[in-house]
Amino acid sequence: LSASPRPTAAILITGSELLLGLVADRNTSFLARALDRLGVDLQRVLLVGDSEDEIVGGLRMLEGHDLLVTSGGLGPTHDDRTVAAVAAASGDSIVLDPVLRGKIAEIMDAFARRRGIPPGDYTDGIDKQALVPRGAHVIDPIGTAPGLLVPWGRTTVVVLPGPPSELAQMWPIVEAHPEMTVLRGGERLERSLLRVFGVSESVVAKAFEDAGGDGAGTTTTICARRSEVEILVRAPSSARDARLRLTDGMRDRLAADLFSEDERPLEELVLDAARARGATIATAESCTAGLVAARLTDVAGSSDVVLGGIVAYANDIKHALLGVPGTLLERHGAVSAECAEAMARGALAATGASVAISTTGIAGPGGGSEEKPVGLVYLHCVTPFGEVGRRAVFPGDRSAVRDSASTAALHMVLSLLR
Amino acid sequence: LSASPRPTAAILITGSELLLGLVADRNTSFLARALDRLGVDLQRVLLVGDSEDEIVGGLRMLEGHDLLVTSGGLGPTHDDRTVAAVAAASGDSIVLDPVLRGKIAEIMDAFARRRGIPPGDYTDGIDKQALVPRGAHVIDPIGTAPGLLVPWGRTTVVVLPGPPSELAQMWPIVEAHPEMTVLRGGERLERSLLRVFGVSESVVAKAFEDAGGDGAGTTTTICARRSEVEILVRAPSSARDARLRLTDGMRDRLAADLFSEDERPLEELVLDAARARGATIATAESCTAGLVAARLTDVAGSSDVVLGGIVAYANDIKHALLGVPGTLLERHGAVSAECAEAMARGALAATGASVAISTTGIAGPGGGSEEKPVGLVYLHCVTPFGEVGRRAVFPGDRSAVRDSASTAALHMVLSLLR
Repeated sequence: LSASPRPTAAILITGSELLLGLVADRNTSFLARALDRLGVDLQRVLLVGDSEDEIVGGLRMLEGHDLLVTSGGLGPTHDDRTVAAVAAASGDSIVLDPVLRGKIAEIMDAFARRRGIPPGDYTDGIDKQALVPRGAHVIDPIGTAPGLLVPWGRTTVVVLPGPPSELAQMWPIVEAHPEMTVLRGGERLERSLLRVFGVSESVVAKAFEDAGGDGAGTTTTICARRSEVEILVRAPSSARDARLRLTDGMRDRLAADLFSEDERPLEELVLDAARARGATIATAESCTAGLVAARLTDVAGSSDVVLGGIVAYANDIKHALLGVPGTLLERHGAVSAECAEAMARGALAATGASVAISTTGIAGPGGGSEEKPVGLVYLHCVTPFGEVGRRAVFPGDRSAVRDSASTAALHMVLSLLR
Repeated sequence: LSASPRPTAAILITGSELLLGLVADRNTSFLARALDRLGVDLQRVLLVGDSEDEIVGGLRMLEGHDLLVTSGGLGPTHDDRTVAAVAAASGDSIVLDPVLRGKIAEIMDAFARRRGIPPGDYTDGIDKQALVPRGAHVIDPIGTAPGLLVPWGRTTVVVLPGPPSELAQMWPIVEAHPEMTVLRGGERLERSLLRVFGVSESVVAKAFEDAGGDGAGTTTTICARRSEVEILVRAPSSARDARLRLTDGMRDRLAADLFSEDERPLEELVLDAARARGATIATAESCTAGLVAARLTDVAGSSDVVLGGIVAYANDIKHALLGVPGTLLERHGAVSAECAEAMARGALAATGASVAISTTGIAGPGGGSEEKPVGLVYLHCVTPFGEVGRRAVFPGDRSAVRDSASTAALHMVLSLLR
């Protein structure tokens, strides 16, 4: 184990379906962020299969951390073996918790009633899910599986269900639980965040070095995802001045490309900027074909800003619904600055929105040429405060091009609305 | 390690940004599927940080597998320490590979020329990325980092770059490499796949038991993702009869809900069914707001089927672009079977497509009522071969509701086109 002045943690994810690649783990990112925020040093994440041997082996590999969080293997069938494995590792016997049994029975009765199934069908499963290691603290189920806090030597084992929404809903209860003293031992690192768009990771690395770099107690992580780069500076409060100095230095150097200093998603920033300006948004999407609208509306409450839009994949639709002239399409082609501009204007006219954003390009893998390569995308944004067009060639495969194009579109709207 | 008649493998993913939850690992699913297909038994996946100690510790925890695949830590900066750690674990010295150095220099020269940067700026990085453990077999870079095959006792260590697209492009070269005899020792398991929509995991589990279950040499994995359930039956060729018998038994019991027996994405199945019928598709999306169109067009070559659609988030747009009568909206509300039907018909009229699919619902978290709860979605699909409407209440948060609604929409189209 690495030496750490903070409590250390490990995560054990169980599930043979993960080792077969049938599904991807979605709990690690959530738990990692939550632990870091609490000042806990997450050092290892291990994925193992479903058998009791594999889970016990995994627990032993992760022994010695202050905190060990497990996810999965709490269902009602014989395939769900995490409780048995935790008891085997910690040496606890397993007992039926009658209070917990009553709560699970109530949940299952309600479920059976809604579905018109005889409640008796579930008895075995209810008994199985009410078994806990002796000495465990029980957290009431969100679905049908309880959470458990199990002391194991100097380690606190937190046993959580696998479904991401159940795990996420249960976590705040774990954080607040009186037995979770380990979570209160962490020195919470203070943090600064800078998010920039449109500059490379190496430019950011240079700004970091020019601003003095780490060394006075800060730990900086530079993380690129496609066209955005996130710079996270963490430091104990004793190194607050160094953190602020470093952050200021990088902010000065990257000011032109800085778009956020907090964790809110880009989509929320766009919606807030639109609200501040009293603007409504419409989309006219060809190569992104609905992605920009879908991203904006994934935010709760987006309906006060987003009116809707047109997915104009075929040229006939560009003409019929967005009023792009046939002669323009003939002369310049659908992938052109002229078409992008006409699409944005057409979306304004069709929807009555005050802001429109359009995309048209070649997502690939086919359809590229010397003059118009795969990845070429034209974007255009019209607002009451000004308008702008952009030509870009995005790298990567079809999904990457579409993702980059939709991100670039959102940044165009954001920058014009600000 | 679990006993296995097949070669066993482990994966070591490195990256402090993963342990902070800043990004999610995207390589495990890809590698897991590739290894399973080669008959290799993936037993563990471990995530560790970037320091040499952490990587060496991770390698030691995973010692003893036939194959150990690492991902990440191969970049040009001092933060990239995987090569040093592998050499430290295996006891090899590190040497500069002059042929590799030449290849990386060529890649960087071309890069610098494109960007107009002096090539000298990269010399340190090139030297660093050309360092390899003595005795390693080098795989040419896809980006700037090479892949490496490093013998370590009975284990073959495969060192791969972290960026998912580089890793995925390099993997076939690893598979075909003459030194990768371990990949040819696997008994490739034969497989049957059944994919059903609209039945619960417990119904599938019952069909599995009624069909005889595992026991005659098969290994069955039942994996639910929202409204779809995937049933994978794997067996060595010696148990082929048992695999086919079990698969037939489940197919008989689940026939009404079976939609696929291969791995192709749902979106591709919809597009192929449309092509077979000579149909074109348009969308009219309210609560999914572009997701259905975006999912269909994520498939290369979808433009021969998907014409486009209307994202009708605001009621005014439903009226103006889809012709939904104001009186209908007043009487039944936008979240109603009547509105869904009118939206689908409006999309046909606006686009000239032969098939239209519509969605309107309450994705939440706000906006629900006793009569129309959060999760309520109406869908409607019109085709030349018949039409159908559906009312559903999807569980989960906003993203889950939108995802389930778009999946249900695609299944409606598929089932009508077939």
